[in-house]
Amino acid sequence: MKVKLGANPLIYPIPIVLGGANVKGRPNFELLGDCGLMGINPPLVYISSHKEHYTNIGVLENKTFSINIPDTKMMPIADYCGTVSGHSTDKSMLFEIFYGEIGSAPMIEECPVNLECQVVHEFSIKHRQIFVGEVIQAYASEEYVEEKEGKKGLVDLTRLDPIIYSLDNHYYSIGKSIGIGYAEATRVHNNILHF
Amino acid sequence: MKVKLGANPLIYPIPIVLGGANVKGRPNFELLGDCGLMGINPPLVYISSHKEHYTNIGVLENKTFSINIPDTKMMPIADYCGTVSGHSTDKSMLFEIFYGEIGSAPMIEECPVNLECQVVHEFSIKHRQIFVGEVIQAYASEEYVEEKEGKKGLVDLTRLDPIIYSLDNHYYSIGKSIGIGYAEATRVHNNILHF
Repeated sequence: MKVKLGANPLIYPIPIVLGGANVKGRPNFELLGDCGLMGINPPLVYISSHKEHYTNIGVLENKTFSINIPDTKMMPIADYCGTVSGHSTDKSMLFEIFYGEIGSAPMIEECPVNLECQVVHEFSIKHRQIFVGEVIQAYASEEYVEEKEGKKGLVDLTRLDPIIYSLDNHYYSIGKSIGIGYAEATRVHNNILHF
Repeated sequence: MKVKLGANPLIYPIPIVLGGANVKGRPNFELLGDCGLMGINPPLVYISSHKEHYTNIGVLENKTFSINIPDTKMMPIADYCGTVSGHSTDKSMLFEIFYGEIGSAPMIEECPVNLECQVVHEFSIKHRQIFVGEVIQAYASEEYVEEKEGKKGLVDLTRLDPIIYSLDNHYYSIGKSIGIGYAEATRVHNNILHF
């Protein structure tokens, strides 16, 4: 039996990131859950932000942005970035900042993972501006990088320890590794063969 | 010290959902991590899918789709939907299906939460087709609905028990509730006042 909950975008879990852009030459960061994956090849991600947000000015100016993924230890400072606007507060001093290959997308050293993005598409729906970025380069703090089959990659989510959000306005931590993509289906395939 | 990991869209955590559409009058479901929130008001979500995927035919045909959020108990069947294509396998019999207000977006009864979406914007980047949907109605199984301050809403993520994905190709469970949005910042505000 289903209950109607209205016209609500109740998708979960929601990733929590800090979107970064240089606005008038100074780094600014906004707390975002309106972000995610749009494809692996090409490597596409997006951020969606109210058109009045200060970060948008910088994304439109430079056609670049960064996605910085904090861990749960950074929850107070990440949350703080969501409570004050760059219109009235300088957030450039909150973090150690570095730049990558494009040079105009400020990234946060303290975040385990950073994505340097070039805007490849943008559009608006009512007051939302959505910026689709191609990832030019991904960066990770070296303690979160491991070699797997001769290739450098990220450690697992239990070590990356991301902040997870839900529209009940709560933050959550990650749980346990419970399965492997495209391998869990074997139980279904086997059943189908038996029937 | 940062390490470069190449042009990879290493965002996390990634939600795992089943995107639904009627293709030639028959329900089809695809496993998706390329989905997420684009705004609360208006209530916007999206799915991004390779243009060859069978579901896309139905989304283009009806201008509607559904997002169905499975729990970890559904991991094998959800994963199975990612291993077989609607081009060659009829997935309409895997689930109990219901329709909502639009009538053309098939939804999965067994999933705790379902979003019925009307396409309000679509675009392509290389072989990816991205469909932005306005949520017309959200549905939840009644055991996952509770009344808070006189309003019906979802229980917390620890009870919804979503499947979480990462580009290391592992599935994860949700952890614990660790904080409240826009309340964790008080520790930073207090520090700033002291300095």
